[in-house]
Amino acid sequence: MEEKGFSKGLARKDLLSIEQLTTEEIWTILRTARSFREVLERPIPIVPSLRGKTIVGLFFEPSTRTALSFALATKRLSGDYQSFSLSSSSVAKGETVLDTLKNIEAMRIDGVVIRHPNPGIGHFLAKRLTCFVINAGDGAHEHPTQALLDIYTAWEKNNYKTLEKKKVLIIGDILNSRVARSDIYGFSKLGAEVALAGPPPLLPPEAKTLGVKIYYQIDDILPEFDIIIALRIQSEREKGLSPIPNLREYRKHYGITRERLKRIRDDTLLFHPGPVNWGVELDFEVSKDIRSTILGQVKNGVAVRMAVLLLLAKGDEI
Amino acid sequence: MEEKGFSKGLARKDLLSIEQLTTEEIWTILRTARSFREVLERPIPIVPSLRGKTIVGLFFEPSTRTALSFALATKRLSGDYQSFSLSSSSVAKGETVLDTLKNIEAMRIDGVVIRHPNPGIGHFLAKRLTCFVINAGDGAHEHPTQALLDIYTAWEKNNYKTLEKKKVLIIGDILNSRVARSDIYGFSKLGAEVALAGPPPLLPPEAKTLGVKIYYQIDDILPEFDIIIALRIQSEREKGLSPIPNLREYRKHYGITRERLKRIRDDTLLFHPGPVNWGVELDFEVSKDIRSTILGQVKNGVAVRMAVLLLLAKGDEI
Amino acid sequence: MEEKGFSKGLARKDLLSIEQLTTEEIWTILRTARSFREVLERPIPIVPSLRGKTIVGLFFEPSTRTALSFALATKRLSGDYQSFSLSSSSVAKGETVLDTLKNIEAMRIDGVVIRHPNPGIGHFLAKRLTCFVINAGDGAHEHPTQALLDIYTAWEKNNYKTLEKKKVLIIGDILNSRVARSDIYGFSKLGAEVALAGPPPLLPPEAKTLGVKIYYQIDDILPEFDIIIALRIQSEREKGLSPIPNLREYRKHYGITRERLKRIRDDTLLFHPGPVNWGVELDFEVSKDIRSTILGQVKNGVAVRMAVLLLLAKGDEI
Repeated sequence: MEEKGFSKGLARKDLLSIEQLTTEEIWTILRTARSFREVLERPIPIVPSLRGKTIVGLFFEPSTRTALSFALATKRLSGDYQSFSLSSSSVAKGETVLDTLKNIEAMRIDGVVIRHPNPGIGHFLAKRLTCFVINAGDGAHEHPTQALLDIYTAWEKNNYKTLEKKKVLIIGDILNSRVARSDIYGFSKLGAEVALAGPPPLLPPEAKTLGVKIYYQIDDILPEFDIIIALRIQSEREKGLSPIPNLREYRKHYGITRERLKRIRDDTLLFHPGPVNWGVELDFEVSKDIRSTILGQVKNGVAVRMAVLLLLAKGDEI
Repeated sequence: MEEKGFSKGLARKDLLSIEQLTTEEIWTILRTARSFREVLERPIPIVPSLRGKTIVGLFFEPSTRTALSFALATKRLSGDYQSFSLSSSSVAKGETVLDTLKNIEAMRIDGVVIRHPNPGIGHFLAKRLTCFVINAGDGAHEHPTQALLDIYTAWEKNNYKTLEKKKVLIIGDILNSRVARSDIYGFSKLGAEVALAGPPPLLPPEAKTLGVKIYYQIDDILPEFDIIIALRIQSEREKGLSPIPNLREYRKHYGITRERLKRIRDDTLLFHPGPVNWGVELDFEVSKDIRSTILGQVKNGVAVRMAVLLLLAKGDEI
Repeated sequence: MEEKGFSKGLARKDLLSIEQLTTEEIWTILRTARSFREVLERPIPIVPSLRGKTIVGLFFEPSTRTALSFALATKRLSGDYQSFSLSSSSVAKGETVLDTLKNIEAMRIDGVVIRHPNPGIGHFLAKRLTCFVINAGDGAHEHPTQALLDIYTAWEKNNYKTLEKKKVLIIGDILNSRVARSDIYGFSKLGAEVALAGPPPLLPPEAKTLGVKIYYQIDDILPEFDIIIALRIQSEREKGLSPIPNLREYRKHYGITRERLKRIRDDTLLFHPGPVNWGVELDFEVSKDIRSTILGQVKNGVAVRMAVLLLLAKGDEI
């Protein structure tokens, strides 16, 4: 699977969603990331690939970890990274963001990393800019580099063997999760079988058309899965109107508790995109469990972002 | 004109206003910028001129574009740029800003780029600091690098020929515009003839002493001008007390509408300092018109700031 | 004193407090800083010691000067510095900060500089992270690099001779001052005799157990001291509930006024951690007095932080 149809670059200018990537493109990113994963272990983890290139990060939602991951990925490719944290209140509309970006692009920028609450804003911008655009989270739509690092970590932990037929369970607020959406597309494209579990109001109406199985409880099914992704309950997105009656209730039904951990197989991978609400999605004991690979995901995130930046910045040159 | 009186550096420590620059100094900056404009087209647009030099940006008003432009200008000269966004509420007074800057300067800083709501704060600070100070906008007083990039763009589009006798029209809220003030001084010093147009309450009382013509309507006069600068209506500065009855009314009388665009000559340059309130100062159709050179201005802005940074950082060494 | 027991590195992973440093470790830092102080005078003040190393600054309280000082110290060692200003409201609890840092550490970070309102948070984090942690101020607990730069400046001004038997007076809000706490430990460990003066409610109850003298007025004692440290009245920490009746009253009893300056010996050093409330802790005339070495302290601060960063980053390699 992974070897066939291998192409050298990406057939696109931007990384906006996993939905639009071909399986071959996903493999190209994963393989490039693997070579950078080795670079990150060197005493001086820097390669000259993006020397003279400038990447601008525009975060209209707060971010420490993703912003830092892109900054480090750029620096380790010898590129220059300039980051701006903007309040979504002051610059909310697509036209205004486009104006800002048109101006930034005119300063001879090679690429833009953008996080913004509007779903699909990346597509809107990418069509109108000649520099490349990386979507670092657009509302509840997609967060493609997070899915790519999940997939990379699953691939790595599987000794770089195919993920076909692997069974993936995503638990939680699927409806509002850009991570879930990107993971569903990504794992499915690599041949894995994705299932979703969560409270009925938090499952997307279109779930069936996505070709994924739906569960409303998790106790019986946990042993079946090779990869389990517990999503963050994003109370900050709910703005006071929560479909979750309370967090204790959520933990009771969908949390990876110490008890549920016993039902998960020893070879199952347990993911969380972070930051974790400990005691809600995951009991704190889970953090010590070797099946939890949250920090491995983060490390791989830098390598995956280096791969994406290089592949987009270099285009046909590679 | 441009060749006579040519001196190698600037005869000053700081760039605080266009008012205080000599014509020769403006030409020195423009010529230096022209050489950097070529650097910006190289595959790796970096020169080593400021290696080991540190520039600090202090923005007491929000800025993405100007802050990024100074950051990129410094990086492309191989200098180090450290930027701080500060709320004007927490550090408002001149003495306090001076204390902060005295401390920053003691860390062995070569120059400071400052934006602050107090008109003239740059002069106050520059007298008390040994590092150089660049005014990146001080209230409604001046924004010299914006005027320099306007002038540079006019010079470039004029095939690097003199701007003497060129007719410049600045339209809008002249009274509250630091860009207008800097443009009036700059274009006048190069021999251009500057006129102003806008609602009477937004025209400065001292306009006549500045030696510029005043118009209250623009329909008849548009064909006369070689350069037309539409200013941004800065509703955020008005703090609820607007002398403009409403924006629709403003557009009707002073906006560059699709209709008015037809009255502007084909060889006229149309500028806007950005960000544009589309549908107010400019109709959106104008953005596609080749006479609109807003993004060219932005690109030239990096070259002009490289020139200013180099000339001030190097002083007599050049 | 300074020569005996000299060891090459620090016997610890982190710099969390002066209390836990040995006298030998303090001397190691001071001597290393002295070599960097010379580097800072070079035309290009950069050494390659930390090439390929990444330091992350996390400031949960506003900071311009300390944040910039650490950024410059890292850059001048050729390291990469990434800084985040975070509101203490959004990320207040130790567990949450730990989660953020665990994630950041997983991106292959060498060290973290943290300022946070919780006293002792550095210890909590340092035990749980493998990268080094530098406390840049934890509530009213300690601010070790500030004390180190005070001590360095005193040592430098004493022609690099021992500080034993030197008499140090710290004036002001000792109770709420992390600078005072660090200075008391630091100067005492080097053999100096520390005394405290201030309004009774602002003196720490444990002062006597610290082995320091206490004064409630300063007029008679000023001539006795070799080093006088005037602390900042931190009204922002008091949150409306001030034990100081008013600032004029404070100045009357504890301010270094023009009159009191005459009672201070010519060879006495006068310090202030900045930013100064002019007219409260110090009369503005004091800033021009050569005994005031505030800006010298700031310059030494970069060298001291370079020393700390290098000693922690290199560990046993030195």
